[in-house]
Amino acid sequence: MNEFEIINKYFNFASHTAILGIGDDAALISKNKKEYTAISTDTLNLDYHFTNQSDPYYLGWKSLAVNISDILAMGGTPKYALLSLSIEKLDKSWLAKFSKGLRACAKNYDTEIIGGDTNKGSKSISITIIGDVNKNNVLKRDALKANDELWLTDEIGYAALHFQQSTIPKKDKKKISNCLKKKCCNEFLKPSLPFNFINDAKTFINAAIDLSDGLAGDIKHLCQKNGYGAKVELNNLPIHKWFVDSKHYEIALAGGEDYQILFTASRKHHNKILNLLKIHNHKGSMIGTVTKTKEISYFLDGSSYNLKKDGHNHFA
Amino acid sequence: MNEFEIINKYFNFASHTAILGIGDDAALISKNKKEYTAISTDTLNLDYHFTNQSDPYYLGWKSLAVNISDILAMGGTPKYALLSLSIEKLDKSWLAKFSKGLRACAKNYDTEIIGGDTNKGSKSISITIIGDVNKNNVLKRDALKANDELWLTDEIGYAALHFQQSTIPKKDKKKISNCLKKKCCNEFLKPSLPFNFINDAKTFINAAIDLSDGLAGDIKHLCQKNGYGAKVELNNLPIHKWFVDSKHYEIALAGGEDYQILFTASRKHHNKILNLLKIHNHKGSMIGTVTKTKEISYFLDGSSYNLKKDGHNHFA
Repeated sequence: MNEFEIINKYFNFASHTAILGIGDDAALISKNKKEYTAISTDTLNLDYHFTNQSDPYYLGWKSLAVNISDILAMGGTPKYALLSLSIEKLDKSWLAKFSKGLRACAKNYDTEIIGGDTNKGSKSISITIIGDVNKNNVLKRDALKANDELWLTDEIGYAALHFQQSTIPKKDKKKISNCLKKKCCNEFLKPSLPFNFINDAKTFINAAIDLSDGLAGDIKHLCQKNGYGAKVELNNLPIHKWFVDSKHYEIALAGGEDYQILFTASRKHHNKILNLLKIHNHKGSMIGTVTKTKEISYFLDGSSYNLKKDGHNHFA
Repeated sequence: MNEFEIINKYFNFASHTAILGIGDDAALISKNKKEYTAISTDTLNLDYHFTNQSDPYYLGWKSLAVNISDILAMGGTPKYALLSLSIEKLDKSWLAKFSKGLRACAKNYDTEIIGGDTNKGSKSISITIIGDVNKNNVLKRDALKANDELWLTDEIGYAALHFQQSTIPKKDKKKISNCLKKKCCNEFLKPSLPFNFINDAKTFINAAIDLSDGLAGDIKHLCQKNGYGAKVELNNLPIHKWFVDSKHYEIALAGGEDYQILFTASRKHHNKILNLLKIHNHKGSMIGTVTKTKEISYFLDGSSYNLKKDGHNHFA
């Protein structure tokens, strides 16, 4: 049973008045004539999402950024956040650095921290994010259409490579340059969000999902859960050359911790999207198409490719 | 340094667009012409707020109820909640009971669970609550006035007596009847909220705060933080006879885990409030008055009373 099955079995209560309840990147509730309020919550836990060695500045940054990513994936603009912080003991230096990182991320994405509580407990950072979504630009997961093109906003796999380094065979590990190592570490600590790109592209995107649990799993959530399938061309994946040369596609496909956005759009917008990706200096690409049949198939060099692992399961 | 000092020092970021940021029971953001959106978050952690022996049904109920209390203390109506649940391992029986309690509380207070995530980690329940507050009925903490009467919505001290039983001298412990024990346990597991009373009384309440950290500490938060003081008459406290007979006022005053509401109102509403308390079958009472001087003084049987402990500090 994975996270999604737990939520579905125990916590998927029907909502009668929300515009959108459990099952998307954020819930939507009514706000005013023009906008919905989007709201989502995410938790990072000691020993599972970070360690006592994790730099508190980057932890502060990331804990807010991963929440902003959820609002972005709804086509929204983040506005406010609330923090619920549990700590075992009062470590003023840790708190000061964590607060500085949180504040810097909030400033960067024009988001205000308006509430919070602190509690004694195993270290845990729970953030709730609130954003505005224009009613005309909602990017719901179920708004995809057959024959839509499937896109990624930017490169993936860096964060997963960072935390999976110890599992990589020596011969492939040797080929990880220092520059690549640094990029992996940076993306793990301070994930880049395709903030401006999504803002510009949201008017012609059909459906979107943020990639927190790994591309392969999120393709399933986006396509199969809505009755569709996908054909994915691994040669088109926006990944570093190292993954291709060493054939470690699985790290990029199932590693998780990417905060890029997987979206679908009609073929007619292909060139506009390419152009916008270029304007925003993103290496994103069209990675496949949405199909009517529920199967997800991967192709590499013209042949079918069997995925060994298809998503990050917290409870595996 | 206690919870409030931590929040003030590290997380009290100025908000430029929220109606009300950190420092009240809930934050307020603009919604529409008539209403604000109130939003608040609270976390319950294993070994600090509950144990592995805690009944998951009541934990599910209470984790939502304590959040609803925050919306109530703003004069609002709870509408939606999001759950962020961390668990070490997949315990289906625990999840089923917890979910049942959460759902029952949500149904009882007409609140919908619209989002959530589950994570691997030390057991922790973080809930964010969203409510509507009519702009004319906001119960802000800083809206109290000198000479306001200070009221409690109902009896306090039961939950604190439940979890402090082991620290009570034998001679006093003997006098705790089975009926009182049961009431204490019930209030600890499933706190009663003065939901309908606040709904009826909010038009003539000036300021309010929910009592999560103990009456004495919360009187400070309500009065002193706003430049006022208070005179509190212990003979008027709505507490069980046992506290009076055994002189264990501190358990009721500083114990915490009460989810009653401390509020202030003009003297002219005295009889209306008494009448409403009676209608709702509450044993609440007027416990004192708000003073211009910042001192908080307690009186018992006509004499000044020195408080030994004045609030629950998670980090003491």
